[in-house]
Order: sequence, then structure tokens, then C-alpha cells
Amino acid sequence: MAVIYNRVALIGLGLIASSMAHALRAGGFAGEIVGYAKTAETRATALEIGLCDRVFDTAAKAVQGADLVVLAVPIGAMGALAQEIAPHLAVGATVTDVGSVKQAVIDAVAPHIPTGVHFIPGHPMAGTEYSGPRSGFATLFQNRWWLLTPLPETDAAALARFRGLLESIGAKVDTMDAPHHDLVVAVVSHTPHLIAYTMVGVADDLRRVSNSEVIQYSAAGFRDFTRIAASDPTMWRDVFLTNKDATLDILGRFTEELFALQRAIRLGDGDHLHAYFTRTRAIRRGIIEAGQDTAAPDFGRTPKT
Amino acid sequence: MAVIYNRVALIGLGLIASSMAHALRAGGFAGEIVGYAKTAETRATALEIGLCDRVFDTAAKAVQGADLVVLAVPIGAMGALAQEIAPHLAVGATVTDVGSVKQAVIDAVAPHIPTGVHFIPGHPMAGTEYSGPRSGFATLFQNRWWLLTPLPETDAAALARFRGLLESIGAKVDTMDAPHHDLVVAVVSHTPHLIAYTMVGVADDLRRVSNSEVIQYSAAGFRDFTRIAASDPTMWRDVFLTNKDATLDILGRFTEELFALQRAIRLGDGDHLHAYFTRTRAIRRGIIEAGQDTAAPDFGRTPKT
Repeated sequence: MAVIYNRVALIGLGLIASSMAHALRAGGFAGEIVGYAKTAETRATALEIGLCDRVFDTAAKAVQGADLVVLAVPIGAMGALAQEIAPHLAVGATVTDVGSVKQAVIDAVAPHIPTGVHFIPGHPMAGTEYSGPRSGFATLFQNRWWLLTPLPETDAAALARFRGLLESIGAKVDTMDAPHHDLVVAVVSHTPHLIAYTMVGVADDLRRVSNSEVIQYSAAGFRDFTRIAASDPTMWRDVFLTNKDATLDILGRFTEELFALQRAIRLGDGDHLHAYFTRTRAIRRGIIEAGQDTAAPDFGRTPKT
Repeated sequence: MAVIYNRVALIGLGLIASSMAHALRAGGFAGEIVGYAKTAETRATALEIGLCDRVFDTAAKAVQGADLVVLAVPIGAMGALAQEIAPHLAVGATVTDVGSVKQAVIDAVAPHIPTGVHFIPGHPMAGTEYSGPRSGFATLFQNRWWLLTPLPETDAAALARFRGLLESIGAKVDTMDAPHHDLVVAVVSHTPHLIAYTMVGVADDLRRVSNSEVIQYSAAGFRDFTRIAASDPTMWRDVFLTNKDATLDILGRFTEELFALQRAIRLGDGDHLHAYFTRTRAIRRGIIEAGQDTAAPDFGRTPKT
């Protein structure tokens, strides 16, 4: 347990920032945690539940004197935020963000970062469908990836220090360039989310199946979709608007493939279906072996009694 | 703890039947459990791990003297199975099945059921992505729906007795007609599964994103899809072939809706996206309130340490 940053400023106090606060505090990795949130209610909550030692009513005030500044606001708000805080950043400070899209954040934030301040774009690949200051928990990042997309000019020592913090709170860290990051997440996260949102919306729309039936009989499959589709609407709107090209690219591949399966169903081509379903099964085994999910037969859910 | 059926014959010993065996044994609801499986290996396993008191190498032998016969084979195999066992069924016995599609099973099985035998088609809405005799566990049906689609001529006393058994092993039971059942499950289960299979297949196909990246970085979203897409290929092939019309119907609605969202992304229509994502969030709340999933912030997953 050693302090890695003397003062951490969390800008935005949602799921990710509040989980960071819990994890930093649990490990004693921050000398002080300060915060900013847009609403007075969230700021009051942050003090009440002990997320922050101090809260401020502007981001500009919150970042003063901080050696780590975490931008944890929707992607669409990053540019204006960076512009606002830029004059108040301490020389030598590290600024990071937690946005799910990296090129758009770099384009919006990097031009505002003053000389002598280190900008390290980041993406914690962890989350739940909950949001707000009460949704965080200290173990959210345990064994999860935190991808960093440093710029060519990023200072190696600043990067190593930040990476050390992330590993201290349990994350696995990898680095890659921003465009590749954005394509990878379009595949493993953004497009699946859009599809889940769509399916849940369709179910909600159907008049022949009542909403209570959809809710009551939702089993594995749809139930998992609704969990995904309950994620923060603002965050996801910004994800799709800012990772547009990669998402549309993967969506195109998805519909092509879906139409092929649809055709197999229509034609009664059982061999095509069976071969496809057998192939996808192997990927699942790989994910369990990589430790990204539990293999418990009940999915780790506690049976209801 | 009271015996409800003197001899239960489980025909097919996969996830559902083996879970039934565990649940029946745990509650003492069956005087004797006998079984049939196609392969000698599965039959040996069933004896070794105590699923069945006796196993038989033909379904015809297994059903003799049983007062409850459970057909737990892929839907495509139900018709031939019913034909084989029909002459060996005891008068007064109840025959049920556990297929995910009901009209196709009724069409295949009902014509073979002799007078004096009660056929009660059923669908336990519970499962994991595992299959085989070792995949079962006694609590699989706890608090899960078991839908029955009795025929107009189904005997009320036989139905009440079977319903009592299902409730004894923890299931919630509802009845509806077969065509409506098939539409409901097309919405809450079959179409979501097809979509998950598709997305996982697309990810596997992409050359610009390596398979190891897909596996390593799979987060909520894709990770849940892979769990769905790891389900038994034969079972799901038969589901889509036998619930073709309802699945194609819902798929049509799905692609229509997906194209509208895709267009909103292309045009940068954030309001459309935000409104859609806000609406789907409400459904999730309904599911948690209905007790179909856990609201634990970590989804009930045990954090890895």
C-alpha cells in the first residue's frame, strides 16, 4: 500500500469514477481524492458515501493541484471539458479519460492539453448496467482489461506510473493505437450492444406478445440482452456517434451473416445451421480459458430459494 | 417429501434430464429413476454419478412400467422416439417432453400416443450453455418458468399431478396454447440466440481483429453473446427448423429496427439513439422486478481475486 498519486481528481462521478474511488481508497493509492460532478445532488452523494474527500462545483477548481486527472464524462462532453480545465492543470500532471472510443477523444482533448502535462487516453473494459455515484464498487476492475492508447509523444515515465496504478487496482493493462482499439471494441462491445438494444426494442414493440410475457418469460438469451440494453443511454449514444465508421462496418458484416442464417432457416438447411453453431461454441471455450468469464454451470448466479 | 411418480423414465440424459434427476432425487419425488441414452458412454456416466437407478439401451425398454416418461431429446428426434415407445407405454402414464418448440413436438408426438396415456407437452425455460449428463444440477429449475401447452383433451387430474411435480422441484408453471408459446419464445429466446450466434460468428471471421483479441477483450456484451452462442448446436438447429415461421417473423422486425438505428448512426441522429436506449432500459427494470434476474451490481459474478 503506497500512495501513487498525491491528489486524484475525478471529473464526473458515475460508475467508473466511483469504482475508481472505492478501489483507490481500498488500496491507499491516492493521497487525496477530489471530485467534480455536474449536479449538486451527485456532489452531495459523493461526500455522503465517502467517494471524495472534497468536491467542487466546477471542473476547473477540481483539477487544481491534482497530479492525476480522470475525465469520466460522456465522450461528447470531453472536448469542452478539456478546454475548460486546460489552464488549471498542474505542470507534470497526468490527464486520462475513460471513454469507450479513443480516436474521437484524442481528437477532442489532445489539442487542449498544455505542454508539460501528460495525456494518456484510456478505456477500462469493465462495467455494469448501472450508473451514477452509488453504482461503483472496488472490485469492478479486478482481472479486467484497461486499454491505453498512448500518443507517440507520451512520456514513458508518466505512462509507467499510470500503468502501475491501474495494475494496483487489479486491472490488466495493454496498449494499442487508437484506430485499432476502436475497431476491436466495435466487434467485442459496440455492435453487440446495438444489437441487444435493437432486440429489446423489438420485443417491447410487439403487440401480439404482451410486455408482461416478455418480462416474465425472459430466459437466458433475452435476459442477457436486457442487461446489456439497460446501460447508460447517453454514454452509448456518444459511443455510436463517435465510433461510427467501425460500428457501421461491423454492422454490415453482421447483417450479411444474419441474412445467410435467415436463408438457411427459410430453406430448412440444418447442416448450415449446425456447422455455424458448432463453430461459435469454440470461441466461448477460448473466453473461459482466457479468464474473462466464469465457467460455473449456473453462470455464477446465486440460485434463488 | 413425498413420492409423486413411482417410476420416472428419462429418455435422453442431457442438461435438462440430468438436472431433473438431481432435483427429483434431492426431493424424493420419484420412487425410481430409470433412463435411456443413445450412447453407452452416457449410460455408463448416468449410473456412475447416480443420475439413474437403472439404465436401458433402448427407449422402449426404459419406458416400461413408468408412470412418468420425459422425452428429453432434440426436437427433430421426438417423432421417431414417440413411435418407438408407443407400444410400451403403461396405461395411465403421463408422457411429457422438454422441447423449446411446442407445435412441432405436438405434431410429431401426439399421433403416436395411445388411448389412456396422457401427453402433456412442456418447456422448461432454464438452461446453461453446457450439455451432457454431467451438466445437470438440482437447482436449475428454481424460480424458472416451466410452460405447459396441454391439448384440449388433456386429462385435468394428470395435468394437476404433473404440475405438482414441477412446482415441487422449484419451477413456476404456466399454461398457454402451443402457437402462442412458439411466438413468445421466438421473441424472448430463439431470435436472441440466433443473433448472438451471428455476432460471435462475425467476430470469428474478421481478419483485421485477431481471434485472440476477440477472446481477450470480450467484455460485457460480447461475453454474454458467446455464452449464448455456446449452447448445444443440435438442439438449436432443431429449434430454428421447427419454429421457422415465428423466428423469421421476429427476425424481419429485428432487421427493420436495426436498419433504423443504423441509419440514425450514419446520419448522426443522437436524439433517435438516446430515445431508443432510454426506452429499452425500462424493460430491464421490469425483468428484475419480476425476479427473473439478479440486480446485484456485479451480476452475481464472484469477483476473481
